[in-house]
Amino acid sequence: MTAPSPDAAGQLFAAVDIGGTKIAGALVDSAGTLAHRVQLPTPARAAGAEVLAVVHRVLDHLAAAPRWGEVTAVGIGSAGPVDLARGTVSPVNIPGWREFPLTAEVAAHPAVGARRVALAGDGVAMAAAEHWRGAARGADNALCLVVSTGVGAGLVLDGAVRPGPSGNAGHLGHITVDLDGEPCPCGSRGCLEGIASGTAIARRALAGGWRPAADDRSARAVAEDALTGHPVALAAFDRAAQALAAGIAATAALVDLRRVVIGGGVATAGPVLFEPLARHLDRYAALSYVRGLDVRRAELGTDAGLIGAAALCR
Amino acid sequence: MTAPSPDAAGQLFAAVDIGGTKIAGALVDSAGTLAHRVQLPTPARAAGAEVLAVVHRVLDHLAAAPRWGEVTAVGIGSAGPVDLARGTVSPVNIPGWREFPLTAEVAAHPAVGARRVALAGDGVAMAAAEHWRGAARGADNALCLVVSTGVGAGLVLDGAVRPGPSGNAGHLGHITVDLDGEPCPCGSRGCLEGIASGTAIARRALAGGWRPAADDRSARAVAEDALTGHPVALAAFDRAAQALAAGIAATAALVDLRRVVIGGGVATAGPVLFEPLARHLDRYAALSYVRGLDVRRAELGTDAGLIGAAALCR
Repeated sequence: MTAPSPDAAGQLFAAVDIGGTKIAGALVDSAGTLAHRVQLPTPARAAGAEVLAVVHRVLDHLAAAPRWGEVTAVGIGSAGPVDLARGTVSPVNIPGWREFPLTAEVAAHPAVGARRVALAGDGVAMAAAEHWRGAARGADNALCLVVSTGVGAGLVLDGAVRPGPSGNAGHLGHITVDLDGEPCPCGSRGCLEGIASGTAIARRALAGGWRPAADDRSARAVAEDALTGHPVALAAFDRAAQALAAGIAATAALVDLRRVVIGGGVATAGPVLFEPLARHLDRYAALSYVRGLDVRRAELGTDAGLIGAAALCR
Repeated sequence: MTAPSPDAAGQLFAAVDIGGTKIAGALVDSAGTLAHRVQLPTPARAAGAEVLAVVHRVLDHLAAAPRWGEVTAVGIGSAGPVDLARGTVSPVNIPGWREFPLTAEVAAHPAVGARRVALAGDGVAMAAAEHWRGAARGADNALCLVVSTGVGAGLVLDGAVRPGPSGNAGHLGHITVDLDGEPCPCGSRGCLEGIASGTAIARRALAGGWRPAADDRSARAVAEDALTGHPVALAAFDRAAQALAAGIAATAALVDLRRVVIGGGVATAGPVLFEPLARHLDRYAALSYVRGLDVRRAELGTDAGLIGAAALCR
């Protein structure tokens, strides 16, 4: 028997996690435990109203839970960019939503009533989750990254998650680490995401002549071959790790932090990613106050988005 | 007659600004006005005790001022890196000081007595100055840069200068903007400072075939020729502006800020720097929440270090 955590008897929050492939929801208690979980595919190419209808179906499901009456607030983590001042979102992968008034549309759901609606970008939500219940717990300053199809991140500064005025702080995926690098769909060039995301790793491996054994052209398939010593697969992860190291070192130097938490599908590659990352960090994190960063694996997996959305309500 | 500012009748601080070429001191009132200013050359290659002796001579001078008795605290801005937890400094350009206990040694000066001694890196001090009395005034979030021999910076976040736990936050000069770029003396590679500093601008111009009319091989001489349309001089500033744009855009995206203040000798080049900077920022600051950054010239010039050291005491 585990003793209940000190705040386990506290509040109950409704959490919604909106991404380009799925829209998830759950009730989350003050211990970070999920209940009544639901997940629906995102109709990412559909009109904005259709995407909203899925969010409302998720809220319908949560509102049908016996404990809904105890819910004090609704937290939303959304693919970005978001705009906290306006309560709008413009997710790159959901073109039907451009400056879409998500906060107001969630508040307009009949079951939400007068409850507070808290919004942040998904990177901020993930950082809030790992700081609350995961690998950034206890760190006053931390960078929490998700490396998967894209690269997202959030910052913990001086003991609290810092969404920034717009709610997008920590958006590491689109900082330039390669001044003359490839153009990025965001309009800039040499962005970290264009080198370090799972998509970029698979693309680089394929361009280098790697061919998957099955028909799986994902970064995970590249990672499996890297584990057996495939030189092209190893080189693709090494390049991603180099770019991540430069981006992490830049963030650590800029905001003065030492804890780094990495999650997302690419992080499940384990040593294939973390070994070259440590090697490259030795070089790029050279200033005295950023040497020997404390790099950890994220602990909350795919639930981080929901736990983080709830953490925004605290 | 100018009316005294509302807090002009407040406290008096002693400020010390320690750099690789000069050590300056002044008394600074709550309006940011300097009095009893003193400046001595830094014996940068001398033993640590000799450098400290110059700091003590600056303090001797300040302690001889009639108003010394009103001084409530001593603020020090020092070339970095610094270590706030230990009260030590290890300025790159003062090799005699490595983990040098500057806070304790200043506190040990007989005239300092029981007064509080506040320390921060020079980039943080400059940001504190511009936020208090200069071009970052009124901004809740800002990046303040000094582009001269090197590149330093400090951050204003949520209404206050944020030194970070070590006192080095905002250290923009050694973030990597060029992943495979030139090795930097700091141990990393492709650092912003190695492309955008005055030193780097002059080096690039000379390498491109630019020759100064007089024997002045400084960035200022390059700027003068760029103003007359010299293509190599223009290209050297353009490259510096490109790297600065990438670094500024990365900072704005990471911490979510819109005000950018640029000072230092290179900024006095005016349009030769700021015009290509605006052009490159249009490209690198592409995310919706960092588009159209508010870039301003610093207002406090070479006094920023002293005003900022005083601002640390507030």
